[in-house]
Parts: sequence; structure tokens; C-alpha cells
Amino acid sequence: MEPVGFIGLGLMGEPMARNLLGAGYALTIYNRTAEKARQLVGAGAKPAATPADAVQPGGVVITMVADDRALEEVTTGPQGFGERLGQGGIHLCMATVSPDLARRLAAWHEERGSRYVAAPVFGRPPAAAAAKLWIVSSGVSAAKQRVQPILKVLGQSTSDFGEDAGAANVVKICGNFLISCVIEGLAEVLTVGQKNDIERRAMADFFASTLFACPIYQNYGPMVAAGRFDQAGFLLRLGLKDNKLMLDAAENAAVPMPFGSVVHDRFVSAIGRGRGEWDWTAIALNASEEAGLDSTAKP
Amino acid sequence: MEPVGFIGLGLMGEPMARNLLGAGYALTIYNRTAEKARQLVGAGAKPAATPADAVQPGGVVITMVADDRALEEVTTGPQGFGERLGQGGIHLCMATVSPDLARRLAAWHEERGSRYVAAPVFGRPPAAAAAKLWIVSSGVSAAKQRVQPILKVLGQSTSDFGEDAGAANVVKICGNFLISCVIEGLAEVLTVGQKNDIERRAMADFFASTLFACPIYQNYGPMVAAGRFDQAGFLLRLGLKDNKLMLDAAENAAVPMPFGSVVHDRFVSAIGRGRGEWDWTAIALNASEEAGLDSTAKP
Amino acid sequence: MEPVGFIGLGLMGEPMARNLLGAGYALTIYNRTAEKARQLVGAGAKPAATPADAVQPGGVVITMVADDRALEEVTTGPQGFGERLGQGGIHLCMATVSPDLARRLAAWHEERGSRYVAAPVFGRPPAAAAAKLWIVSSGVSAAKQRVQPILKVLGQSTSDFGEDAGAANVVKICGNFLISCVIEGLAEVLTVGQKNDIERRAMADFFASTLFACPIYQNYGPMVAAGRFDQAGFLLRLGLKDNKLMLDAAENAAVPMPFGSVVHDRFVSAIGRGRGEWDWTAIALNASEEAGLDSTAKP
Amino acid sequence: MEPVGFIGLGLMGEPMARNLLGAGYALTIYNRTAEKARQLVGAGAKPAATPADAVQPGGVVITMVADDRALEEVTTGPQGFGERLGQGGIHLCMATVSPDLARRLAAWHEERGSRYVAAPVFGRPPAAAAAKLWIVSSGVSAAKQRVQPILKVLGQSTSDFGEDAGAANVVKICGNFLISCVIEGLAEVLTVGQKNDIERRAMADFFASTLFACPIYQNYGPMVAAGRFDQAGFLLRLGLKDNKLMLDAAENAAVPMPFGSVVHDRFVSAIGRGRGEWDWTAIALNASEEAGLDSTAKP
Repeated sequence: MEPVGFIGLGLMGEPMARNLLGAGYALTIYNRTAEKARQLVGAGAKPAATPADAVQPGGVVITMVADDRALEEVTTGPQGFGERLGQGGIHLCMATVSPDLARRLAAWHEERGSRYVAAPVFGRPPAAAAAKLWIVSSGVSAAKQRVQPILKVLGQSTSDFGEDAGAANVVKICGNFLISCVIEGLAEVLTVGQKNDIERRAMADFFASTLFACPIYQNYGPMVAAGRFDQAGFLLRLGLKDNKLMLDAAENAAVPMPFGSVVHDRFVSAIGRGRGEWDWTAIALNASEEAGLDSTAKP
Repeated sequence: MEPVGFIGLGLMGEPMARNLLGAGYALTIYNRTAEKARQLVGAGAKPAATPADAVQPGGVVITMVADDRALEEVTTGPQGFGERLGQGGIHLCMATVSPDLARRLAAWHEERGSRYVAAPVFGRPPAAAAAKLWIVSSGVSAAKQRVQPILKVLGQSTSDFGEDAGAANVVKICGNFLISCVIEGLAEVLTVGQKNDIERRAMADFFASTLFACPIYQNYGPMVAAGRFDQAGFLLRLGLKDNKLMLDAAENAAVPMPFGSVVHDRFVSAIGRGRGEWDWTAIALNASEEAGLDSTAKP
Repeated sequence: MEPVGFIGLGLMGEPMARNLLGAGYALTIYNRTAEKARQLVGAGAKPAATPADAVQPGGVVITMVADDRALEEVTTGPQGFGERLGQGGIHLCMATVSPDLARRLAAWHEERGSRYVAAPVFGRPPAAAAAKLWIVSSGVSAAKQRVQPILKVLGQSTSDFGEDAGAANVVKICGNFLISCVIEGLAEVLTVGQKNDIERRAMADFFASTLFACPIYQNYGPMVAAGRFDQAGFLLRLGLKDNKLMLDAAENAAVPMPFGSVVHDRFVSAIGRGRGEWDWTAIALNASEEAGLDSTAKP
Repeated sequence: MEPVGFIGLGLMGEPMARNLLGAGYALTIYNRTAEKARQLVGAGAKPAATPADAVQPGGVVITMVADDRALEEVTTGPQGFGERLGQGGIHLCMATVSPDLARRLAAWHEERGSRYVAAPVFGRPPAAAAAKLWIVSSGVSAAKQRVQPILKVLGQSTSDFGEDAGAANVVKICGNFLISCVIEGLAEVLTVGQKNDIERRAMADFFASTLFACPIYQNYGPMVAAGRFDQAGFLLRLGLKDNKLMLDAAENAAVPMPFGSVVHDRFVSAIGRGRGEWDWTAIALNASEEAGLDSTAKP
């Protein structure tokens, strides 16, 4: 089991790093705010003062940061690990970033003899803790093979999408977009139901146990039905960020996305209404409000 | 087991009637084109010359017809069964009709001492044949109780939505609408994927086996991925009809449905392009065509 | 100057009838609620007890009623004028109705030797009073020629769209739709302006005096800017009716109208918010509300 | 008449500079590709080798460049004029750029004792040549007063929107957006008309001579009617750029723009279909194509 660097210990990164420690990996960890690293150090991880300090030349480093800007900073920034990783190294990026950045970093690493493997994940923090993430990967085959044992520790499955470093991120942002479509679709029909005196939860449960008996409808249906979004699992303003990754990728590919545009307008409206720190499912409130319902009322 | 009238022997009605015969029910059947009834007669059903002839006063009659107009005709039309059904009779309507008509017929029957039970179904013809339909019901409780044994024969589950005759139809058209949203959502993301050299089927299969591991994504994903819609399971022009039932119900409830409007535009465009007799999943072609792809090409 | 029947004395019909009287026409008038006819009787018009009583066999009758249903009732209903109008008669319909109904009535009249001329109008009540209406006409040429003197009295111009009785109504509902697009477009940009501390009225006035120096922007700009819609010139629920005429005509022609769908959703939302009796420009409030602005506040 | 620097001699900048020369201004000119400057030099302008060379300390410099990036480069880039302009200088930016950049540059100049005046223009090249531009201005009052004589030479009117440097650009991108709404609205109705056998040009001309008798409908109506967009007056890919300036400004202000999203999808589709170098009115083709019409056919 080779030593691994781990950069980014947020709601997702922390339980993932913990699972690697549990599996016996020697981890060197870095987080922008050092405080978050403390507990993991207690569990055996070695803290690093900079991103560069977290990697071994020719080693493997996992990044699980918030967005494109953060990824660029830890990789190619002044204290970034990129140059130090060098010949034979692997940058295993599990964050949700743009396909464009993934491709640019893949080329950047290649010039230095290192490799970029994209392996973004589906699942919320509890799934990360339970090692039940669904992982999608893409990148150079030999590099993907080397990190396979690591991915096995972190997720319940890894689905591969070929050699293009950007491909896995395309799939990832498409998946998040499909989830937002479920939220909007449910919001619309539950509102029609509500105005026909059908209990929102009853309709959501029916769909989630028959035609749509799958995790997304089962997790999101009750939230959209309840109409309470103040306890954020995934912040609405980050949902907007992901929506924009989707629309940018679509525009780059010259694909109009009318559903994407509707969802975009929902996110923007939610921001305008001061809900950026709520759970992203709060985009469902628009359907209620536009129908003239008191959005806090439940049937 | 009481004798039952059965009106409407289309792609769905025929296998349903056959299952009732198989369960031992004495069936009197009626279809607008008598030919379709012949095989069932061979299997033991008794043919009726008119809708009225298919019912017993005070008995149970099932209707499984194409649309609102057909339902009105067989019920309250010149040869309709409505008046004959009379005191104590039950009209068990399993067709997809508007909530409005369901409510009007419920009132109409009540004036005559009969009852209207709404029990529309989810599932395509093979599910009907396998008695695997998901049934949603609403209407007067005592009446629903009396037809319970019949529904048990026809479906794998019955979910009830209360006493309002229109409620079950609201749920039914909402369900069909959610399916159309899946088609459109997948069409958009698979097209972005395709332009990023990701095989359409691979992306569809990934979603259908993880986040969206449920019947609708598993059935529709491969169809949308393949981009071939010439063999119709459910006609596109009927999909437009269902979409309009949804938008009408939404307008009656004063609920704007932006996703509903997008899907509506897709259906209208497909009609304009001469695809009314194709499978309704052909609305997925718009996403490809608007992106400048040859819609017949597959990656 | 031949005698003329006039049916429908609403906000538009009354000043139009008055202008004909002023020009010397002998008018027989009918209105569903007789009270409205009284003042015109004082001005010389002859009241009729039924639509049929308002026409002379072989004469000219003008209809200016609210919608398709009203037009059918006064024409082909039990007390309708249709049969009495007979050989050589002209039905000059100036109401906003569906192209479909126009075509059906044209055929209906033709079977009886009478003719249907469509001549819907653009302009609000003050324009009707000032004889400044813009008229669009279509129908059989000889019939249009005969009513030309009448149209000259009522409007400032008549633009002809050929022999198809439905054509003029297509143009009419398209025109109303374009106005609703101006309302929505202005609502969106004035809201962006407002959030950038640009006075709504200042931006509206700039456009209405330069790029868009024309009646619609000059009339509607200040209304959308002011954000007060409680004094109705044209009822919002009638605007929804016209929007549906547009979408129905588009669907019949298999033309998707994404702008039409957006505007439709605005109307439905306004109904849901209890604004059906406000001026139709109140659809502009949605843009403010979705942006999180107090829709009653003005910059 | 003070000497003036002029940077950016494209389709708009060239005739504007020529008008200033004609009015007696001493011009120092700069263009990225020097060739374009030659004819103006023949007319009396003095060429500059770099943006910095085009300005006098404390003088006035006009920028008329393509986009945000170009404006930043000529102003604050290595050869930019910004530092040299210095105390008392005025940067009169007449280009269409983002309100954000305008505000950032205003602050940047203020730190150096110079001023930024925003004065974007409405009008195509012939209007620029005829000095018939509509100018919108914003910025510090004293600075605006000093450039007033210059603006008088270039346009037929200047409408002021206050001290915020970003305000004029907000108005400018809102105006361009309203034009794109006219194109889309006309495209939808002319297509419905065409399918009802109404000549596209006839309907467009009717509107442009009555309800919408103003420059935009008169200029764009015939183009949308004709359906030929191969001779570009304003490139479609630049129209997409302006649409994105609008959507970005709207998102920054947290204003959803459903019309904006529809138009965006039209632009993206047109790019996907290879029309980026056509005139931007080619977004009208989508309405025809989605209706199943051969988009090259005209009625």
C-alpha cells in the first residue's frame, strides 16, 4: 500500500480520508484551514503545511476541493504540489470541477511526466463515510489501474469513461443536473397535487416506491414534499455553481439545454430571495410561490 | 366472484380482460371495433353489441378507453351504459382521462345511485399481461372496497388517494409527465455527452444502475440513447394528449409548469416534423437536432 | 348608406357603434345585457330583443363579442341571426376569436348564401372612440369591398390578408402576443436595471423614444415601469384567453413557441396570485417577485 | 477643440473617428491591426504604435473595442494607455462591455486621478457614419460635461443614466437584449403565419407600420421575414457574447430572465448548426426548423 497525499478535508473529503486511514494507507493531509485536519492527525494522518508538502515525488495525491479555482491553486499555485509531484506521479482528482480544467490539468501534468486521473463521486457525506460512493473515472489507463485499490476503499463501484480526462466530469455534472431536474419536476407535480388536495408526501412516496423506486427519488422526494429547506445538506449556491458547470459545458459543446435554463432561472431566483445558504432543494419553492401558495404552508 | 362488464379492448385493455377471465370472472365485453373482441370470446368472454349491453343493473363495469371523448360516449352517449348501470352499480374507470371528467362523471353517477371509481394504471402492455400494473385509485370508499378483488387480479399494487374521484387521475397524469421529464433530461445530457465523445448508452446505463436504478430510467434510458423511435410502444401524438391533460390540470389549478411548457414545445415540434406516429420518446430528437447533430447518427 | 346590425356593445363595441351612428348609419343594436344599449338608443340606434332581430335578410351585421362561445351563440344559437341573415348577407366579425371558428363560420355562412368577413382590430377603447383603430381584414373579396365604407368610419387603416377567413384572426392574435412579449421583455430588463439603481421609468422612456419609438412601447413602457396594475384597461384573465388562442393556433400549425410558453406561465402564475381582474400588464410583476423584490416597491 | 486619442477602428469605430476628424478634432489613432488605420491617416489622423502612444497625459481617449478582454488589454495591459493618461485624463469608453468591468476600470482610473466615462452606442455602421447614433452615458458629471462636445459630433442624442460608471452599459446590454426578443417574437409569429399561408413579409410590414412603427421592427422585420442571414451585419457569435453579458448581469443582480434563457438557447443552437459567422438574426431559423419547415424555403 503506497503512501498517499490527501488535499481537501471538507464534508466529503474528511470521511473519505478517514476510510483510507482505516484501510491502512499512510496519509499526508492538507487543508486550507488547518483546524479541520486535527482529528485526522489524531487518527494517524501526517499534517502538511502546504499542498506541496503533502506529496511525494512520483507518488499519488488525491484532491477533493471545492471548485476550479481551489483546484488550480493547490495544483499549479505558488505552494501547489504540481511541480513536486513530477515524473511518475498521479494526481487523482475526485472533486467536481469543469471538464475543461480537467483537460488542461491533464495536459499540464503530462508535460511533467505525471498523470491526471479524474474520479468524481456521487453521494452525500453519509455515503462517503459508509464507503458507498458511486465513482466515475477517466484518464490514462495505466494511471487508473494504479489507483484502483484506493477507489475500491472509497466507493461501492467505479464506472469508467475512457481516456479523456474530462469525460468523468462531464458525467458527474450531468448526474447532478439530472438530480436538479428531479427536484423541479417533483416541485411542479406536487404543487398541482396540493392544489387538488392531494398530500404532497403521499404522491412523492407513491412515485418513489413504484416507477421511480431509486435513491434519488427516495432521498429527494420527501424533502421536496416537506417544503422545508433550512437545514442544508448541499448548499443552494453550490447547486448554482454546478448548474453553471453544466451550462458552460453545454455551451462549449453547442448544445441548448432548455431544462438546464429553467433550472438556472430557479437557482437565480432562489439567490434573489436570500436562499443561497439553504439546501439546494429549495429551488422547489418557486413552483409553490408562482402558484400563489404560501411557500411555508404544507397541506 | 361477480360478473363484470369490460369496455375497451386496446393494447392495455385486452390483456387486462384476459387476466380477469383467467381469474375466473364472467366477463361481458365491448369494443368499438368488434373484431378485437373475437379472441377473448374464444377464451370465454361474452360479447356485447353496445356499451349498454355490457353491463348488469347494479353491477360492475370497467372502462379502458382512449380518451375523454370516448369515455363520455360509452358512458352517457346514446348507447352508453350509464343509465342502465343504475342503483348500486359501479363504474370502474381505469383509463387515463382528465380529473375534470372524472369528477363530472362521479357526480353524474351519484345522481343515479351508481358510483364512479377512478383506477388508472402505470405500465406498458407487457406489464398489463403480467398483471404487474401499478394502480392508483380514488373514489367513494365502499365502492373501492367492492372492486378491490378485481384490482388485485390486474396489478401488483393499488395506491389509494382518497375520496375525490379526480385525485387518481391527477396522480396518473403527473406520473406520465415525470416520465416525459426523464426523456427530456436524458436527451439533454446524453447529447452533451455525445459531443464529448461519451457513448450515449454508456452514460444512460451508468445512471440507470446507480442514482436512478429504477424502472423508468432502465426502460427509457436505452431508448433515448439509441435514438431510434420508429417502433412505437406509446404513440407520440398520445404523449402530446397526456401532456395537454397535465397542462390543463395545471392551468385549472393555477400552477405554472415551466418543465411542462418545455416538454409541450418538444411534442409540438415533433408533430411538426412528422413524428406523431413514432414512439413518444422521439421528443428526445430535438435535443440532438438543435445541437446540430444528424439526429439519425449514433456515436 | 345601408342599414347595419351591431351586436356586442362592450368597452370596444359601444364607441364603435357610436361612430357609425355619427357617420349617419341606421343601426339596429343588440347586447346581452340590454342596459348597455340604452345610451345608444338615445343617440338614435334601434334596439333589438334578440341577435336575430338585429339583422335584415341580405344585410350587414357587425359582431364585437367577447369570445368564441359568445360568437357562436349570437350567430348559430337558438336566437342567433345566422339563418335570418341568409342569401346576400354579410357577417362582419370584428371580435378577437380563433382562426378555427372564423373558418368554420365562413363555411357555415357560405352554405346559406351569406358571407363572413373577418376584421379584428388593434387599439384600446380610446382609439375606438377616436376612430383610430388598426383593422386587419380577410375573407371573400366582394364582401370585403361592400363593408369597406364601414371600416373607413371605424379605423385609421385596414390591412388586408387575403381570402382565408381565418387569416385576419391569425394576425390579430399574433399582434396581441407580440405586445405580451414587450411586457415580459421590459419587465425583465427594468428589473435588472432597478437592481443596478437605474430608475425603471428612465430606462423605459429611453427605449420608447429611440430604438422603440412606437405606440406599444410608449403605452406599455410607463405601465410596466410603474408596477401598478390595479386599474384594468384590459383584464389579465382576458390576456390569458388571448394567449391561449395564440398557443392553440400555434399547436394546430405545429409551431413550438418558447416565448409563448414563458408568457403562458406568467399568466397562469398571475391567476394563481389572484390578479385575474388586474390589467394584463401585471404579468410583469413575476419578474420582480422572482428577483426577490417587493413587487409593490418602486425605485 | 482638444486633441483626442481613438482606439479601436472596427466597423463602428472607423466612421466615428472619421466624423471627429471632419468636425476638426486632432486625432491620434490606434488599432490592433495597423492596416485599418491607414485610410484615416490619409484623412489627417496621426497613427500611434501602441495604445499608450495614442494618449496625452491629462487628455481624452476614446475606446471602441470588441469586448472586455480587449478593453482591459488596451487600458491596463503592458502597452496600455492607463498609466500614461494620468491626472485629469478621461477614458471615454464607447464599447459594449460588462457593467462590472466598467465599474472596475472607473475605480482603477480614480486611483490615478483620471476618470472613466461610459458612453456605449445604439446603431449599426451606417448610423455611425451618419452621426445618428443613440448614445447612453454614465459616470462622474464633470467628466461627462467635458466630453459632451465629442458626443454631440457622434450621435443624434445622449441619454444620461447618472454617476455609476456601470449604468450606461446596463442600459446598452438591455437594449440589445430587447432587440433579440423582437427577433425571436417575430420568428415565432411569422412561422405561425407562414403555416397559415400568410406571407411572412406582409405580416412583418403590417406590424412595423402600425403598433410597432419604430426602427427596430422596421429594420429587423424584413430580415426575419426573408429568412436569409448569410450577409452578416452583426455576427451571430457576437450576439451570443452580448446575450451572455446580459445573463451575467442578470445573474449578478439575482434576476431570472426566462426570455433571456430562451434567446440563449437559440444562440447556442445556431452555433451548433454552424451559423456563428451569419447575421445574428439567424437565431430566427430555429422557430422555422422546429416547426418542421425547410428553413431555406420562403413562402
